[in-house]
Amino acid sequence: MITVAVDAMGGDNAPDEMIKGAVEALAMRSDIAVILVGIESVIREKMKAYSYEESRLRVVPASEVIATEEPPVIAIRTKKDSSIVVGLNLVKKGEADAFVSCGSTGAVLVGGQLIVGKIKGVKRPPLAPLIPTTNGVSLLIDCGANVDARAEHLVQFARIGSIYMEHVIGVKNPRVAIVNIGAEEEKGNALVKETMPLLKECADIHFTGSIEAREIPSGQADVIVCEAFVGNVILKLYEGVGKALIGQMKGAMLSSVRGKLGALLVKPSLKQVMKKMDSSEYGGAPLLGLNGLVVKAHGSSKSKEVKNAIIQCITFKEQNISEKIRESLNQEQNRRNENGV
Amino acid sequence: MITVAVDAMGGDNAPDEMIKGAVEALAMRSDIAVILVGIESVIREKMKAYSYEESRLRVVPASEVIATEEPPVIAIRTKKDSSIVVGLNLVKKGEADAFVSCGSTGAVLVGGQLIVGKIKGVKRPPLAPLIPTTNGVSLLIDCGANVDARAEHLVQFARIGSIYMEHVIGVKNPRVAIVNIGAEEEKGNALVKETMPLLKECADIHFTGSIEAREIPSGQADVIVCEAFVGNVILKLYEGVGKALIGQMKGAMLSSVRGKLGALLVKPSLKQVMKKMDSSEYGGAPLLGLNGLVVKAHGSSKSKEVKNAIIQCITFKEQNISEKIRESLNQEQNRRNENGV
Repeated sequence: MITVAVDAMGGDNAPDEMIKGAVEALAMRSDIAVILVGIESVIREKMKAYSYEESRLRVVPASEVIATEEPPVIAIRTKKDSSIVVGLNLVKKGEADAFVSCGSTGAVLVGGQLIVGKIKGVKRPPLAPLIPTTNGVSLLIDCGANVDARAEHLVQFARIGSIYMEHVIGVKNPRVAIVNIGAEEEKGNALVKETMPLLKECADIHFTGSIEAREIPSGQADVIVCEAFVGNVILKLYEGVGKALIGQMKGAMLSSVRGKLGALLVKPSLKQVMKKMDSSEYGGAPLLGLNGLVVKAHGSSKSKEVKNAIIQCITFKEQNISEKIRESLNQEQNRRNENGV
Repeated sequence: MITVAVDAMGGDNAPDEMIKGAVEALAMRSDIAVILVGIESVIREKMKAYSYEESRLRVVPASEVIATEEPPVIAIRTKKDSSIVVGLNLVKKGEADAFVSCGSTGAVLVGGQLIVGKIKGVKRPPLAPLIPTTNGVSLLIDCGANVDARAEHLVQFARIGSIYMEHVIGVKNPRVAIVNIGAEEEKGNALVKETMPLLKECADIHFTGSIEAREIPSGQADVIVCEAFVGNVILKLYEGVGKALIGQMKGAMLSSVRGKLGALLVKPSLKQVMKKMDSSEYGGAPLLGLNGLVVKAHGSSKSKEVKNAIIQCITFKEQNISEKIRESLNQEQNRRNENGV
């Protein structure tokens, strides 16, 4: 049995979709329990609309809510009874295996580090969403936790990302590439040029070199390493270009009778593509390298995304990912000590 | 009459598509002349396939070719008789108003600065392609010339980009935004945080604040300011996501009889969208801030892109963009001097 705490108050559609998603997750899997964290009276009232196994769904009260625009560090320090702080404390105390939130990204990232804490040896915990590609999914690491990262951080991202893709997603010997502006050796900014030789030296990862942004959607790498500013741009542009293209196509098709008829016929095919290329199908983004699992899902998440984010926690826990990250970093430290680095 | 020198040897489809594009441009506009630069015997042989007004198409021989993988600075310094160096010298000497190349981006950028030279006051000439949006085009500035830019460079990009959008594209009082990872004031990396207040102080541009990558495709800003690494990622991901989505849709539609029938019906609508969202429709990317116009078009350009890149040079020349950039930077310098900065 795995226990997932869910921030019932975070996100554009809280608390309704959070509660619905939790109930859906419980119905789908019998090996999970959910703790809804938030304003108890509101949650209890909404829960009345659903039927669920009562022993697997409980409420832990939290009287405050952290808004998206609040400065994260201050919010985490002052709102001790917020759903995010209370939820993260459940993970810290071992009462929950994971915490899922659709609320303030900044607060979840800061709170994850301050409350749940980093695995010994982890320099900066990366936020690593899965992005859909034409032949599966890739892990984009890092996407928001650490702007202005250094080379040593990127090397850890590569290691941690490899472990995640291999053990949670099941990709054997995942291909790791660094985002760059060209394939040639001399290309790149200072950070990429510094990181490249360090990645080449890592015997424990399958580093394949540079990846240009245009190759990302066709799945040319399993683990895509970049610093958070670039990762965030990639993640959001992915969403933006897709949305714009689909919108334009719909508009164009519906502007003529011929197009409208065609649209009816191609609808099932397009739906299938949309589902495949829709990142919400793949749950939230885990904040990796912590002493417990913290998952940040999209602020606009509906029950489906919440359910997927909860389900995703099962493999993470089963595969003991935090322990594997700890071991990998330990081994690396030992290698460095032996070599007198 | 405007004279455009075209690198006949640069790009995946050289020299055939370069020559074809030049001939097409001549047929479209009577106020331009084209100089094809490259290996004379090869060009003359290929030219036989076309009819054109001979007084407006001439060949200037260049015996060498710079390959994409050559280190740019060395290539420009040693291959004095390459099509890129010879073409850029035509601009320097005033024999051509502009130079268009689909060859090595690095060599064009380095050569543009070393041979044609920067406008006095320009710190780093940015490469600024137009990208299609759902309601027109936006200028993405900078996209490849200057990795690891500083705040003062980004401020110049904003000014130069405003001038380009206003006078070449005809957008009145263009909205300028800086690429960021969130709309909140405290978000961003060190570079963005440093640049933001400087942009706010610019009285001569219409600065609207941060733009998240997801808002770019819907045309939320006319001039999108970013450093080159991020710009390059945006440009290439734009292309990659579009290609992947279209490919997936085609595959899905053609996998069933119903889909195939629908595909026939929606084809004209989709073609219309493809044309609108296809960046090759908008010519090449100008390298702005030089004492003359240098345009870098995509390495995979066909005759259509070459033609569009040539045509684009007309407005640039007519509007005297280099002079306007010079004036704008002069005025800014005078303001700074008056304020004793």
